[in-house]
Amino acid sequence: MRDVSGFRFAGVSAGIKANGEPDLGLIVAELPVATAAVFTSNRLPAAPVVLSRETLRASYGRTRACVVNSGNANALTGHSGVRDARRMQQATADGLGVPPEQVMVASTGVIGVPMPMERVESGIAAAIREARPSGFSDFARAILTTDKSVKMAVESAAGAPLLGCTKGAGMIAPDMATTLTFVVTDAQLEATSLQRSLGHAVETTFNRIAVDGDMSTNDMILVMASGLGVRPKLRPWTDALTSLLDDLARQLMRGGEGVHHVVAIEVRGAPSEDAARRVARAIAVSPLVKTAIAGEDPNFGRILAAAGTAGVPLTGDRLSLDVDEAPLLRSGAPVVEPEGEARARAVMQRPEYTIALDLGIGRASARYLACDLSHEYVSINADYRS
Amino acid sequence: MRDVSGFRFAGVSAGIKANGEPDLGLIVAELPVATAAVFTSNRLPAAPVVLSRETLRASYGRTRACVVNSGNANALTGHSGVRDARRMQQATADGLGVPPEQVMVASTGVIGVPMPMERVESGIAAAIREARPSGFSDFARAILTTDKSVKMAVESAAGAPLLGCTKGAGMIAPDMATTLTFVVTDAQLEATSLQRSLGHAVETTFNRIAVDGDMSTNDMILVMASGLGVRPKLRPWTDALTSLLDDLARQLMRGGEGVHHVVAIEVRGAPSEDAARRVARAIAVSPLVKTAIAGEDPNFGRILAAAGTAGVPLTGDRLSLDVDEAPLLRSGAPVVEPEGEARARAVMQRPEYTIALDLGIGRASARYLACDLSHEYVSINADYRS
Repeated sequence: MRDVSGFRFAGVSAGIKANGEPDLGLIVAELPVATAAVFTSNRLPAAPVVLSRETLRASYGRTRACVVNSGNANALTGHSGVRDARRMQQATADGLGVPPEQVMVASTGVIGVPMPMERVESGIAAAIREARPSGFSDFARAILTTDKSVKMAVESAAGAPLLGCTKGAGMIAPDMATTLTFVVTDAQLEATSLQRSLGHAVETTFNRIAVDGDMSTNDMILVMASGLGVRPKLRPWTDALTSLLDDLARQLMRGGEGVHHVVAIEVRGAPSEDAARRVARAIAVSPLVKTAIAGEDPNFGRILAAAGTAGVPLTGDRLSLDVDEAPLLRSGAPVVEPEGEARARAVMQRPEYTIALDLGIGRASARYLACDLSHEYVSINADYRS
Repeated sequence: MRDVSGFRFAGVSAGIKANGEPDLGLIVAELPVATAAVFTSNRLPAAPVVLSRETLRASYGRTRACVVNSGNANALTGHSGVRDARRMQQATADGLGVPPEQVMVASTGVIGVPMPMERVESGIAAAIREARPSGFSDFARAILTTDKSVKMAVESAAGAPLLGCTKGAGMIAPDMATTLTFVVTDAQLEATSLQRSLGHAVETTFNRIAVDGDMSTNDMILVMASGLGVRPKLRPWTDALTSLLDDLARQLMRGGEGVHHVVAIEVRGAPSEDAARRVARAIAVSPLVKTAIAGEDPNFGRILAAAGTAGVPLTGDRLSLDVDEAPLLRSGAPVVEPEGEARARAVMQRPEYTIALDLGIGRASARYLACDLSHEYVSINADYRS
């Protein structure tokens, strides 16, 4: 993994997590760098989300650092939570000798518990001391919560490297996994272009994982571009960013709680992209489809019934359905062939496959990523106090 | 249970279900009676839904009979499905000597399998022979599929009895349980008034069970009023119908697959009823809230985070939250009291309780019924081929 010029990274154990795992991460840019971000649309955003949104605006998209803690979400913590997020920002700014409005802040972990600010502040001091150009994987480790492993990805666009990492609370399928994602690059890009690229790239990746991925109280995707490298054309750069985020989104799904199957829901032949997206989403979020995926059961009735809930007019006898290379339905009629069902069952045992539904009424298409709803999911979430 | 004048009912075993259980039900009115119905909004409605919607229109809301089979949904069955639904209608009409456009048809059971029409037709003949005024519970039994028990309820409005029954595929929480519900009364009511009452009554009952209850390919709620009894005022009659449907909806939830807790989600202090409804729904459908209900865990963070996904602006420090008599949150702050959590846990062990969230920003309220997401749910639906 090659370094991205202009940045240093750190990940340290500040004692926020009881188990002593790394829980404080820092990205430092040598100079103010172009920065873009998307934030949760949850109407009860955590204090660091509110603060970072303000910060991005106040800095005109040119920041110097991002400080992140895991182990405590600083969410639903009221006025003291706002104060604590500002203290994190100020401590980082003071330690680095930069203005506080150039420091982004993110948190993830338990909800509704006050932040252990002494530990956080000494962690920030340690992270500032330890930050180094090759520290990205330390950073990537420090942002994890219930994740089973570090999730990183690399891309490049016209010689500009992109380095990214992500974490999920694991509960990816439903609406409130906290997803934090960070991308750094040395490409020369204006903040406005960066923001536009990010909007595009998120739309078909993190916003298409089962439920609009942007719903936890703490979600944030941050991109920082140091400008020390090449100046890429925006189109291929956006493609590279999309590909990087797609890679990270898949890692997130695979690492989800109790997930054994990551399934792409491809809807084709739709009258519009929006219609395709709505149908794909209805299938991806259906608990009955998700349990059928868990049971490795090619139950086309559930898939079609879910498609019918999207509010998009459908014509039953135009529908075709496949799981990877196994056809289930042609022009609305079940495909009856020797060993057809056995073939479909075999596909559904794969860790990753595609459910392709052709609506036969247009030319637009869209894709969602779905996963199974399994016993582990229920166990983890019925017994775990987040 | 007193009879409702003007109707006869039957429930017989036609051999559609492999296990020999009753699977064909019939309601016969002595004369054309005022009829109202609401149907699924699924965009791939089953053939009997399409036919009954047409029939209700063609009869100007005055029908003579409703024939129902369980064991086969006649859904996603293409052109032959349409033909089979018409054959059911015609056979019933011929047997009773009435026009086919006065016969409603409903089906529930497996999807995508052709109807065994010989058995259905001899079942219809048997049901016509056996129909009797006191046969409502036979009818109620014949419409069941995976239900563990018969679900009936009685109400009265100003001396007019209402008799109702319902069935669910059991998968009530998610979007595609097939719910069939039938109500008969001898009240004197015009079809248009009946339809208006039904619309009102459904809105706060069957449309508020976890997900808009109207999403399976086969759902239908039918009300028939013989007019042989009193002429009630519409307002109290609508209240009685609402109360009857509420009773049936709760029975449906209690009988759901793997359901141990039926929880009313009450949202108060909202700026509008629509806002209250959206917040209540967001909580009711959240898989993380549903697993917390299963785990009997008073996890207020999940409830609030789910509330935040509804798109309704919320003010964190105005929120109050209770489970029955146990307070969890006041003005956004966790209620810390000795044994507070133990009390909340005790409430959440009850089979039925209320989660009350006061938004503190208005006077409107709304209620949803939710249930737990349990291991049994996953087992039943991962292993069951519907």
